[in-house]
Order: sequence, then structure tokens, then C-alpha cells
Amino acid sequence: MAKKFFLEDYRVGDQFETHPHQFETQEIIEFAKAWDPQPFHLDEAIAKASHFGGLTACSAHIFSVFCRISQQWTNDAEQQAIASLGFDEMRMLAPVFTGDTVHCTITVEQARASKSNSDRGVVSLRCTMINQDNAEVYSILASFLVKRRLKT
Amino acid sequence: MAKKFFLEDYRVGDQFETHPHQFETQEIIEFAKAWDPQPFHLDEAIAKASHFGGLTACSAHIFSVFCRISQQWTNDAEQQAIASLGFDEMRMLAPVFTGDTVHCTITVEQARASKSNSDRGVVSLRCTMINQDNAEVYSILASFLVKRRLKT
Repeated sequence: MAKKFFLEDYRVGDQFETHPHQFETQEIIEFAKAWDPQPFHLDEAIAKASHFGGLTACSAHIFSVFCRISQQWTNDAEQQAIASLGFDEMRMLAPVFTGDTVHCTITVEQARASKSNSDRGVVSLRCTMINQDNAEVYSILASFLVKRRLKT
Repeated sequence: MAKKFFLEDYRVGDQFETHPHQFETQEIIEFAKAWDPQPFHLDEAIAKASHFGGLTACSAHIFSVFCRISQQWTNDAEQQAIASLGFDEMRMLAPVFTGDTVHCTITVEQARASKSNSDRGVVSLRCTMINQDNAEVYSILASFLVKRRLKT
């Protein structure tokens, strides 16, 4: 059974792993058509002739995959997020090619109670996306509001 | 006719406007279903009862809209981007609700030639997303590689 994960459960330095995601050609093209319609994200022949040398996922697609799998921890924890505050240091470290399978490693960088609201806190997670060859392709620092475990 | 926009065309301090995007209910729900399936992004009744008080777009959806409209300047410039380097200081300043129409204002914060490749440079753009009530809902600093205008 999924375990609800509250502010008190995040300890600075703790690490977690996410489930994987495979980037498939159709998904890469459909996503780019909608949100980043540059020729080298839309057409495999153009992509092969481009500086990337193959079809790659656009930044918005990679961030979206990050958003989804960062909620899918291998320990089945259900993070009790209230709202996203922001994201820092998003880096495209290497292209994400069609067929790549990625997952994220997540390290707790900050976890503190809110000064203004006793029912919540702020958590910052350092997340690195890694492909099937163990290469880092993406990293980001995510900060969000999370519920505290209310005592009853 | 669209004007190709190279490194030399970005001048620090210059400002540009993007075309608008309207967030519609179906798009918000479909996007969240795929990439951020939290109940308050998926169901209008749950959203109304939530701390947001209405249906809001998820972070990945807002970033995706930013990626698309940041390529759609009102002056029809065609930016000659090579690849994204990264994004900093992404801030969710206010919720983006269903029905909201947003656009971005873009300010050139950095534009410099690459030290290692004479055919390209690095550009950083400070972008702020504004809704129909002139409220800032989102901001981000985007950095990317861009082609130089090759002399022939």
C-alpha cells in the first residue's frame, strides 16, 4: 500500500529513485508538434542530418516526464504536495534520444516548516535524470509546498 | 515575411512580446492526465474544493506553453536556436486558471559569442508570463545556443 509522505518524512540528504520512462518516437514527435515545433524534433530525417544526429525530445517533453516520474518513487511513497513554488538550475546535460529509457535519482536538499502556516512546509529536491547507459541527461532543483502530518 | 534572428540581433535590454495562449479546460485536464495526474488538475469539482478554488494548469503545462509562445514573437522574428542549455529561476507566481489568456514579455539579459565555436553564441532571456488581468503568473530565465549570422 502507498505510504503518504509528509514534510516530516523528508530528511536532508536522503535519496530516492523513481520508476523509469521510455521516450518513444511517436511521443517525441506528438509532444513537439504541440509545444515545440522545431523541424529537428518533428522529422527523423531532418533530425539525423542535424547537429543532434538523431531524433531528440524537446525540453518541455523532458520536463514533463520529470514531473510525472518524480511522483513515482520506487518505494511507493505518495508525496503530499500542495503546490509547486519553482524550479532552479534546470540543465540539459545531454540530448535525450528516441528509445532512451530514463529514471531520476532524487536527493532531499531542504525540508523546513513554513513560517506563516503551521500545516505545511517547503521542500527542495535535487533531481538527476539518468539514461540506460548511466549518463546524466538532465538535472533540476524542484521546490514545493508540502503538507505536514497533522497530529490527531 | 519572417525575419531570421541571429546572435547579433539580440541586444541586452531589448524587449519583445509574444503572441497569446488561452488555457482551456480540456487542454488543462488532458495535459495533467498525461504528465501530472494530481486530482486537483483533473477534476473541476475537486479543484473548486481545493486550496486553488478552481481548475489550474500544472507546471509542466505552463512550461510547455512558455516554450511554444516564446518562439512566437509579435514581430515575427524567427530565432535561430541550436539547442537549449538550461533554465533558471522558474517561479510559479500565481495559479493559472482555466480560461486565462497569457502572453510573455521577454528581455534580453545576455548575448555573447561562444568561446569554442565561432558559428554560435549563448543567449539568456528573462521571460515573464502575464495574464488577461495584467498579473504576473510565471517567470523564467532561458539560456540557449543560437547561430551567428554567417558572412558570405
